[in-house]
Amino acid sequence: MTQWLSTPCLAAILSAIFIVVPKFGLTETLLPGRLATTEAYFSQQRNQKLTPDMDAQLAYMSYTDFISPFYSRGCAFEAWELKQAPQRIIKYSLAWYSYGLASVAVIDPSLRRYAGHNIDIAIAKMKCRQVWGDWEEDGFGSNPIAHQNIMYKGHLNLMYGLYQLLTGNTQYEEEFIALSHIIYGEIKENPYAGIACEPDNYFPQCNSVAYLSLWVYDRLYDTNYKAVTKPWLDFLQKKLIDPETGTFHVAYHPTSHAVKPWVSAYTTAWALTMIHGLNPEFAKKYYPNFKQTFVEVFDNGTKARVRETAHTKDVDGGVGAASIFTLVLAREMNDQELFDQLLNYLEPPAKPVIYSGILRYENPTSLLFDELLFVAKVHVGFGELLKIPLPTHNERAR
Amino acid sequence: MTQWLSTPCLAAILSAIFIVVPKFGLTETLLPGRLATTEAYFSQQRNQKLTPDMDAQLAYMSYTDFISPFYSRGCAFEAWELKQAPQRIIKYSLAWYSYGLASVAVIDPSLRRYAGHNIDIAIAKMKCRQVWGDWEEDGFGSNPIAHQNIMYKGHLNLMYGLYQLLTGNTQYEEEFIALSHIIYGEIKENPYAGIACEPDNYFPQCNSVAYLSLWVYDRLYDTNYKAVTKPWLDFLQKKLIDPETGTFHVAYHPTSHAVKPWVSAYTTAWALTMIHGLNPEFAKKYYPNFKQTFVEVFDNGTKARVRETAHTKDVDGGVGAASIFTLVLAREMNDQELFDQLLNYLEPPAKPVIYSGILRYENPTSLLFDELLFVAKVHVGFGELLKIPLPTHNERAR
Amino acid sequence: MTQWLSTPCLAAILSAIFIVVPKFGLTETLLPGRLATTEAYFSQQRNQKLTPDMDAQLAYMSYTDFISPFYSRGCAFEAWELKQAPQRIIKYSLAWYSYGLASVAVIDPSLRRYAGHNIDIAIAKMKCRQVWGDWEEDGFGSNPIAHQNIMYKGHLNLMYGLYQLLTGNTQYEEEFIALSHIIYGEIKENPYAGIACEPDNYFPQCNSVAYLSLWVYDRLYDTNYKAVTKPWLDFLQKKLIDPETGTFHVAYHPTSHAVKPWVSAYTTAWALTMIHGLNPEFAKKYYPNFKQTFVEVFDNGTKARVRETAHTKDVDGGVGAASIFTLVLAREMNDQELFDQLLNYLEPPAKPVIYSGILRYENPTSLLFDELLFVAKVHVGFGELLKIPLPTHNERAR
Amino acid sequence: MTQWLSTPCLAAILSAIFIVVPKFGLTETLLPGRLATTEAYFSQQRNQKLTPDMDAQLAYMSYTDFISPFYSRGCAFEAWELKQAPQRIIKYSLAWYSYGLASVAVIDPSLRRYAGHNIDIAIAKMKCRQVWGDWEEDGFGSNPIAHQNIMYKGHLNLMYGLYQLLTGNTQYEEEFIALSHIIYGEIKENPYAGIACEPDNYFPQCNSVAYLSLWVYDRLYDTNYKAVTKPWLDFLQKKLIDPETGTFHVAYHPTSHAVKPWVSAYTTAWALTMIHGLNPEFAKKYYPNFKQTFVEVFDNGTKARVRETAHTKDVDGGVGAASIFTLVLAREMNDQELFDQLLNYLEPPAKPVIYSGILRYENPTSLLFDELLFVAKVHVGFGELLKIPLPTHNERAR
Amino acid sequence: MTQWLSTPCLAAILSAIFIVVPKFGLTETLLPGRLATTEAYFSQQRNQKLTPDMDAQLAYMSYTDFISPFYSRGCAFEAWELKQAPQRIIKYSLAWYSYGLASVAVIDPSLRRYAGHNIDIAIAKMKCRQVWGDWEEDGFGSNPIAHQNIMYKGHLNLMYGLYQLLTGNTQYEEEFIALSHIIYGEIKENPYAGIACEPDNYFPQCNSVAYLSLWVYDRLYDTNYKAVTKPWLDFLQKKLIDPETGTFHVAYHPTSHAVKPWVSAYTTAWALTMIHGLNPEFAKKYYPNFKQTFVEVFDNGTKARVRETAHTKDVDGGVGAASIFTLVLAREMNDQELFDQLLNYLEPPAKPVIYSGILRYENPTSLLFDELLFVAKVHVGFGELLKIPLPTHNERAR
Repeated sequence: MTQWLSTPCLAAILSAIFIVVPKFGLTETLLPGRLATTEAYFSQQRNQKLTPDMDAQLAYMSYTDFISPFYSRGCAFEAWELKQAPQRIIKYSLAWYSYGLASVAVIDPSLRRYAGHNIDIAIAKMKCRQVWGDWEEDGFGSNPIAHQNIMYKGHLNLMYGLYQLLTGNTQYEEEFIALSHIIYGEIKENPYAGIACEPDNYFPQCNSVAYLSLWVYDRLYDTNYKAVTKPWLDFLQKKLIDPETGTFHVAYHPTSHAVKPWVSAYTTAWALTMIHGLNPEFAKKYYPNFKQTFVEVFDNGTKARVRETAHTKDVDGGVGAASIFTLVLAREMNDQELFDQLLNYLEPPAKPVIYSGILRYENPTSLLFDELLFVAKVHVGFGELLKIPLPTHNERAR
Repeated sequence: MTQWLSTPCLAAILSAIFIVVPKFGLTETLLPGRLATTEAYFSQQRNQKLTPDMDAQLAYMSYTDFISPFYSRGCAFEAWELKQAPQRIIKYSLAWYSYGLASVAVIDPSLRRYAGHNIDIAIAKMKCRQVWGDWEEDGFGSNPIAHQNIMYKGHLNLMYGLYQLLTGNTQYEEEFIALSHIIYGEIKENPYAGIACEPDNYFPQCNSVAYLSLWVYDRLYDTNYKAVTKPWLDFLQKKLIDPETGTFHVAYHPTSHAVKPWVSAYTTAWALTMIHGLNPEFAKKYYPNFKQTFVEVFDNGTKARVRETAHTKDVDGGVGAASIFTLVLAREMNDQELFDQLLNYLEPPAKPVIYSGILRYENPTSLLFDELLFVAKVHVGFGELLKIPLPTHNERAR
Repeated sequence: MTQWLSTPCLAAILSAIFIVVPKFGLTETLLPGRLATTEAYFSQQRNQKLTPDMDAQLAYMSYTDFISPFYSRGCAFEAWELKQAPQRIIKYSLAWYSYGLASVAVIDPSLRRYAGHNIDIAIAKMKCRQVWGDWEEDGFGSNPIAHQNIMYKGHLNLMYGLYQLLTGNTQYEEEFIALSHIIYGEIKENPYAGIACEPDNYFPQCNSVAYLSLWVYDRLYDTNYKAVTKPWLDFLQKKLIDPETGTFHVAYHPTSHAVKPWVSAYTTAWALTMIHGLNPEFAKKYYPNFKQTFVEVFDNGTKARVRETAHTKDVDGGVGAASIFTLVLAREMNDQELFDQLLNYLEPPAKPVIYSGILRYENPTSLLFDELLFVAKVHVGFGELLKIPLPTHNERAR
Repeated sequence: MTQWLSTPCLAAILSAIFIVVPKFGLTETLLPGRLATTEAYFSQQRNQKLTPDMDAQLAYMSYTDFISPFYSRGCAFEAWELKQAPQRIIKYSLAWYSYGLASVAVIDPSLRRYAGHNIDIAIAKMKCRQVWGDWEEDGFGSNPIAHQNIMYKGHLNLMYGLYQLLTGNTQYEEEFIALSHIIYGEIKENPYAGIACEPDNYFPQCNSVAYLSLWVYDRLYDTNYKAVTKPWLDFLQKKLIDPETGTFHVAYHPTSHAVKPWVSAYTTAWALTMIHGLNPEFAKKYYPNFKQTFVEVFDNGTKARVRETAHTKDVDGGVGAASIFTLVLAREMNDQELFDQLLNYLEPPAKPVIYSGILRYENPTSLLFDELLFVAKVHVGFGELLKIPLPTHNERAR
Repeated sequence: MTQWLSTPCLAAILSAIFIVVPKFGLTETLLPGRLATTEAYFSQQRNQKLTPDMDAQLAYMSYTDFISPFYSRGCAFEAWELKQAPQRIIKYSLAWYSYGLASVAVIDPSLRRYAGHNIDIAIAKMKCRQVWGDWEEDGFGSNPIAHQNIMYKGHLNLMYGLYQLLTGNTQYEEEFIALSHIIYGEIKENPYAGIACEPDNYFPQCNSVAYLSLWVYDRLYDTNYKAVTKPWLDFLQKKLIDPETGTFHVAYHPTSHAVKPWVSAYTTAWALTMIHGLNPEFAKKYYPNFKQTFVEVFDNGTKARVRETAHTKDVDGGVGAASIFTLVLAREMNDQELFDQLLNYLEPPAKPVIYSGILRYENPTSLLFDELLFVAKVHVGFGELLKIPLPTHNERAR
């Protein structure tokens, strides 16, 4: 398949360009390997236009016949094979691409229908056995949405909701209603607040997706499922937030009531990002704790990197995703300075190349790398997404 | 299998020969690595004789027992394995070889029966599960011609038609009639003009094949299926041709009415080539736009290369097929100058070798490389193919 | 999967540190490559706190989503694939991790619920076909607990018992009772004392696990299954202990009454370790024989290594596990000097690395390496485990 | 498996020996890498004794337990795996070995029973699915002898016939009669003269095998199936022999009545060889054309090589078998000079090694290399084989 | 699996030791790479004690858990995978190990029960489909003992008999009686003397195993099955012994009455070894012929090597086993001089290493290498085995 791609490298040229940008608090010059200024990313919504690199990443996602991730709604996954993504990761890839696409629709209304189309593709792929088959292979049953597995069905439900909100298209309405009921029902039944991923494994970040999906549901159906949010946040504070650092523990295990005795930056960043969409005060309260515990600014304040846990100086341990999730959190919190520092640290070594209008990272330094840089650069905030106006007659699909 | 092939390399000798050819506007000397002059290719029909390299490519296609692509009508695909062609590509390979073979029959009437035989083999292979199995693997059903999948059934129908037209043999008549009805019926039913490939993926070039097949049908059965052509061309102009550049967008998505926000050279070249057979004026109108947007002449006018999309200087991005499809378009448009420039750019680096009367490219620079160079060199025009006289009694098979 | 792990190497730094520790009889300075002093390991229970490296090994076992051994109770075994552990070994890995976890619960009561959670995970995995499938593949039947296979069901039963003892959770009670009955019943029926692994293969060490499990059963149900212990120890003395060296033969074969004519250090070390929990005097009697026959102290008394059999100077032959099992035995026998010497020999060449709070051995020198170093470092003694107080109301799970 | 073979190389010694042989028209000295003189091969029948290298090749075929091609009648094909022979080729290998074995029986009557035994083994293997499975895999049905497939069933029938003729053993009589009827019946029914290989693929050489098998049938049953020979030869002359060169076209396609527009040396050589057994005049008529069109003598007349097609100077294109089949033809035509020249060209680069009485080629330069050199060296002529006396009572098996 | 083995190499040390041994006719000094003197091997029975290297080879066979060949009676074959033994060879490996084990029982009565245990394991493995599956894969049926296949069932029957004779255990009695009846019955029914391996393939050596098994049967049941021996030896002399050299032809083919026209050293050595146990005079008569035809003494009489066939100077052709089977024959014939010369030739290049009391050859020079060196070194003679006293009450198993 790789023969389809002919990619003479323009990175050398790109990386030689320094662009001077007048901006308070941020680096004045664009580091080699950076594709646009932080200012440019943050002003896309105002300009109603994607930066050129974001247009090129959208092209990566959907331009090339057969091998772009969003080429077809069929159960074909060549794009992830080319990225050597493990099977368990595809569900997260599809979901985060979709959240970025929702922001693209907000930034540039002329792309709203096209963003909706791509989320539709992502939903279709999300339902392929190739995406959820780990559930069955691990021995947990053949129905991936019946019980638990919130790491899968939380994303699916949020994707259903955002799709319907953005497009007005009701093709998934029945499934959205049914799954929202399942999620709401499990939350109400469980003695703890939320739903497990694998049996007996409870993660705050996966639950944040599920709760967010209920808010979208309420928006569309004028229900009040979101009432379960407060007990959940109370539960998190009581059980999962480490009193010493004010950051999130890795996981909670309902059977034993045990909490994994370590905190996690990627867990905290992801969870706070989504919680900020539901309860900005909660996120704002813990954001300073997060930065103090995990973030290290270096190189005279031009760069920042993130530790995965406390009591270490090492960067990005565990699943290796602390820095990229923090980039998304910084965007959600509108923290342009940290966003700029993190991107200076993350992007140049990943060797971005734009060839024939298509962006590709030659050396991604972790899984979900291009997904999360995409989201962070276009993200308008989950609160904003919840408030997105219904589609005009013109924007409605069929 | 490679032991069957013993191929001492004569390329070194070939590439040392410069042939001086008296010709207006074209390179005066034949570049090393070129196999014949542009003039020679364009005068084959007048001479009723293939150039030696085209005879050698026909030998590649069918001479060698067991491993030539057209050796047998069985479901064996060693020839494509040797080319490392992905499974999804074989259908295009069989189809384009067949379109070239139809032109061979026009060029040299003494080869008409043999060309017909080879198209027959191509049709038999086209029906093997190995060729259309991606449809089922992607989860779209087990019948590859029932709905959509015009990227497959469009070619199959055109191959049925050309075979019957060239040979007078009616072995596929029943299937041709049935499939033409399916295609015509879907076109009539769809709220848009044409048929999708994968669900919700509509491509102009794949539709051009389908419409062309209806013209062949009309030729054989005196029907007027071709009446659907005008609404289709109107639809293309309205929805798929970019007003700014006058070139084709990559794709249209019926559910969302979204159009992929980028234009594509290979899409435009392929679509215009076939449309030119149905409506020369339409193609002539957009051909200058095509050249202006995508084609770059260089090396003092001796060579030309093609950009896959607008707003880039990069060559042959996306599926990597912009230049080879433009070569076919240049032939269709009788643009000998561009044909010559493109072939100067494309052929020498691909290292053609003729050994024991058989042509092989040692270093093809994209998928479908040898197929499209074959078509371009022998192509008599789709309009010409539509007008081909019925076979004489002598030329009719069985 | 390896992309999840980004592990810049701090080993270079670690290995440059010499720590001077005031301690009778032990090395005064910590060798490069050692992670903590022997004194520190032996005082964990007194301090009610794990050493930092043990915290880091617990993090290795359970921190990282998807790829830690104890990440989920599903039948996924990525962690062992990363260690290239043969399938037959996984059962031992799960069991020894569990025995170490039981000690962790004793050392630090605040980790008792979490240790219980992890043993629960280990039990769930123990029941996956991937763990016991060798029994069926070898042709011994499809039920791995019906007859013999004490190498599997002995560990499973001890894990059931320790889990229930530590957590008070009765989810496995029914299975624990049933399996204890099977084990007790087979012991009573067999003409020899104990149960075979594969048919006709009897090993003392695997039986030691089974007998220990009956003591846990007695503790929980006030039965007297332990009455079978004395006949067993008599049988070992009569049949399996070599009169010349006072160490254990490798195996006994019931059909022929033959004994393998060689003694084995790993067999003796494992068996004496567990027997010491049941009958300290028996173990104390043979411990000097063990050391005299197998242990070699070298490097001026700073290091010790272990021969697998008698009449050789070679180290760690056979399954390659003599030294690591001797480390566990030394801990059980409270022999700090030998423990220190062995760890000096074993740990530095295995290249331990702690990155982001997670311990990993880059160059483990045998199978079960990290498992047995973990057990040895945290082990509180099997006698102690048998006496562990029932969980307080707070410590009980659900 | 390769461990069975220990083959210190004597080739170096062999290749240093020049043997002076007094012989009209042939090379006076034996080239290094040649194993015996042409004279020696041609006088084996007179001497009733194989040359030593032919004895060594017979040993290659049947000496070594488990891995010789003719070791057992079971469906094991290790010998061909060691030669990396494609599955489709095994049928030809078994057949040509058998034709050589029939000549061995004529040369040395004391080997007649042993030759018969080996042909029996070849027939047994010929019926294994591993040999004919390509027919089913290509989608042509599950019965390899019902229709067409003359490339398989022609050889099988000739092997049945030669076996019965040589041994008097009637174990395959029923199958021989049935298959001869099928072949004869298809010939009579077909509108053309002969039977296709794959559907619509007709080859002269494969038909030559089938017709020859009918002559053996007539010999054994006093029938007159051979009457179909003349119409067949007429058909070949009319349809398949190129008027310009007097050599055979590659193939004929019955549906289209098309003939492949190229001639083929290997096709012509094989077909003429067998036709010579049925109609010597026909073969003698075209033999000069064959030599003129394809054969090139070089190195001062000491060597000869063969072009696969006309209008080329290149050697052995296509399936790469022109020279080796010409060697067999030269033997059939008793053309000692050309035989000698060809063997001088073919054998030395193939690096023959005789070790422990077994001949092996270290560097065979095409598929079927050792098979066809074996046949050519021992061949007594197909006419001679048809006239072989029935076995004496002593020579009859069972 | 290889991680189980840690094998620092002591070969360097071993190979530097020359031991001076006072012995008539044999090398006075032990060559580097030899493990014990010939005298030492031949006096084991007198000393009732294995040489240390034989103890180490027994340890190789059975010491190491999971990976020793005789570790378990289950259908696991890791040990042979580590040796890269082809599947077809495992049956011979199990059988020859067993014959050596029977001699171990004779040498050292204290090992009799243990030897019996190991033969029991070998029998259990012999019945696994992995061992006899080639019979079914070759297409000869699903019952490996019903007809022919004497290469398998001959060994199985001899193993049954030796096991029962050595241990007094009757667990296989029923199977032994049934199989002996099958073998005896086939011998009586066949028009030739003996039973084929694969259909139509008759080998003297495989029959020697079968006849020997009937002698064991007679010993245990006072029958006179051995009466078939004389007709068999007559048949061998008439049909299979080459009158010119007095050695055995490779094989006989019953259907054609053909004999393979070459003699074979390994065939002759194996057959004479076993025949010597039944009819010493017969073996003594042909032993000089064997040595004259095949054995070459070199290096001033210190070494000997064996040609596989006549009319060659090359060593160990064919299956590569001439020298190792001759070593066993020399032992059977009590020819200490040849035994010493052969072992001097065979053992040093195979790089024996004893580590932790376990012998392993790093560079075995043929298949069955360690098996046949084991047998040759401990062999007490098949005649002696037939006369072994019944087990004492103490030695009887169960």
